[in-house]
Amino acid sequence: MGDLGAILLPVSYPHRRLISTRWADNDVYGHVNNVEYYAFFDTIINAYLIEQGALDIHAGQVIGVCAESHCTYHAALAFPEAVEGALRVGELGRSSVRYELALYREGSDDPAAEGWFVHVFVDRASRRPVAIDGRLRSALEALA
Amino acid sequence: MGDLGAILLPVSYPHRRLISTRWADNDVYGHVNNVEYYAFFDTIINAYLIEQGALDIHAGQVIGVCAESHCTYHAALAFPEAVEGALRVGELGRSSVRYELALYREGSDDPAAEGWFVHVFVDRASRRPVAIDGRLRSALEALA
Amino acid sequence: MGDLGAILLPVSYPHRRLISTRWADNDVYGHVNNVEYYAFFDTIINAYLIEQGALDIHAGQVIGVCAESHCTYHAALAFPEAVEGALRVGELGRSSVRYELALYREGSDDPAAEGWFVHVFVDRASRRPVAIDGRLRSALEALA
Amino acid sequence: MGDLGAILLPVSYPHRRLISTRWADNDVYGHVNNVEYYAFFDTIINAYLIEQGALDIHAGQVIGVCAESHCTYHAALAFPEAVEGALRVGELGRSSVRYELALYREGSDDPAAEGWFVHVFVDRASRRPVAIDGRLRSALEALA
Repeated sequence: MGDLGAILLPVSYPHRRLISTRWADNDVYGHVNNVEYYAFFDTIINAYLIEQGALDIHAGQVIGVCAESHCTYHAALAFPEAVEGALRVGELGRSSVRYELALYREGSDDPAAEGWFVHVFVDRASRRPVAIDGRLRSALEALA
Repeated sequence: MGDLGAILLPVSYPHRRLISTRWADNDVYGHVNNVEYYAFFDTIINAYLIEQGALDIHAGQVIGVCAESHCTYHAALAFPEAVEGALRVGELGRSSVRYELALYREGSDDPAAEGWFVHVFVDRASRRPVAIDGRLRSALEALA
Repeated sequence: MGDLGAILLPVSYPHRRLISTRWADNDVYGHVNNVEYYAFFDTIINAYLIEQGALDIHAGQVIGVCAESHCTYHAALAFPEAVEGALRVGELGRSSVRYELALYREGSDDPAAEGWFVHVFVDRASRRPVAIDGRLRSALEALA
Repeated sequence: MGDLGAILLPVSYPHRRLISTRWADNDVYGHVNNVEYYAFFDTIINAYLIEQGALDIHAGQVIGVCAESHCTYHAALAFPEAVEGALRVGELGRSSVRYELALYREGSDDPAAEGWFVHVFVDRASRRPVAIDGRLRSALEALA
């Protein structure tokens, strides 16, 4: 009582995206290969940034480079079912951001996998870190 | 006149499926790599058969093996836009089927690519051709 | 006798490249997914052109776009065995080239698959066809 | 003196494997997509186990399922250069193993990426953990 801090609030993800699986995702054991989970992470993050007008992957001066990623696998996914991806920003720095992600079998409330992914934003030509600002920063702040 | 056979009817596809693109689909030139078009073909075909209860990829005695495939590329697709796949059966034999497929940018009426794909149905263990019958044949006939 | 034209000469491929398979190549039926064969084609062709100094995929003014591709599957490949790819030029036009390819299980003389692939060379910015000349033409002529 | 613990010994990897990159590995920024690094991990691990006769991915009663994976990216890799993968076992439990991996540009001594990967070995049918023993345990011990 008076100790609300001790109550673990469920993590909530402000952004969600449905991803269709593909025949080739299933590996020899009949489920989506662990590698594809990272392809889903990549897809959720970049599609969000592009659709927000925060990242121009073809001609923008600033690009996002992956510095670190991680995934914990809880349950199997399998083609042809769809995957629901969920995204939030866990930490937003000057030139880098740590995303936190979850993947769900469509219709399920229990994540099949949880992970995180660190993007460092760099200059396209020099590949040196740049400050996150403008539409990119606001798009990321909206997920915090 | 009286020569209606000479009028080319537009090809119609009885089955359609929306497929989400992924970050990794785009190649260094900024568009979906030509290889992924075949992954879309595979996905449309197998998802249809599985959802019709016509193919059990995990335990069924009969599996479909690709004998030949082809794709003609008309226009570029690019992540993050979705792709609409269209499928019909062009020829249905005793143990093989020739699918005809088209891929569209979502919302477009002009195919970005057209192709075909031959499945031979074989016994999972012996890999020898088997007759297409039962639910598999009716699922394929429905696309003819 | 006097009918040498009837003797089928074996197709010979001037360029060969060993490609390692990956865990994810195997699909649920335990063999390399048909789609990956096209990834092998792409790899053999582009690696050859890059290593010949005939194509600069990062900054060159001219890029190769796939217009059409085809594969006929004869036998299964499977991870972890390596694949030997073979390449020759079947037809060389003003701005396009038709490659002919074969894939072998390492150590085998019988192709597991044969196919072809048409590259149209275009201007990177305008995507309009350009004439094949210079090092690009000589690299392709060397495979004819 | 007496402070040898402070000297960082270089991590050594008892197993190495050369992996060829593919055209499709390069993403829109011109380097191997971060996701493929995990495909390299998967490939190094499973190829080793298969070639040691420690894992039968087609018919064995025991299969390896990924429970967790991680990668830290130090430098870019790019098609068409080859990647050298290095593998060791960091921790070997009753039914799970933690592999530690590094990826190098061919000929380089500085890892382009380092990561780890946890395999839990389970019964193919029930997917319940099983004890690692026999050839599987000896193959893993050889990498410790």
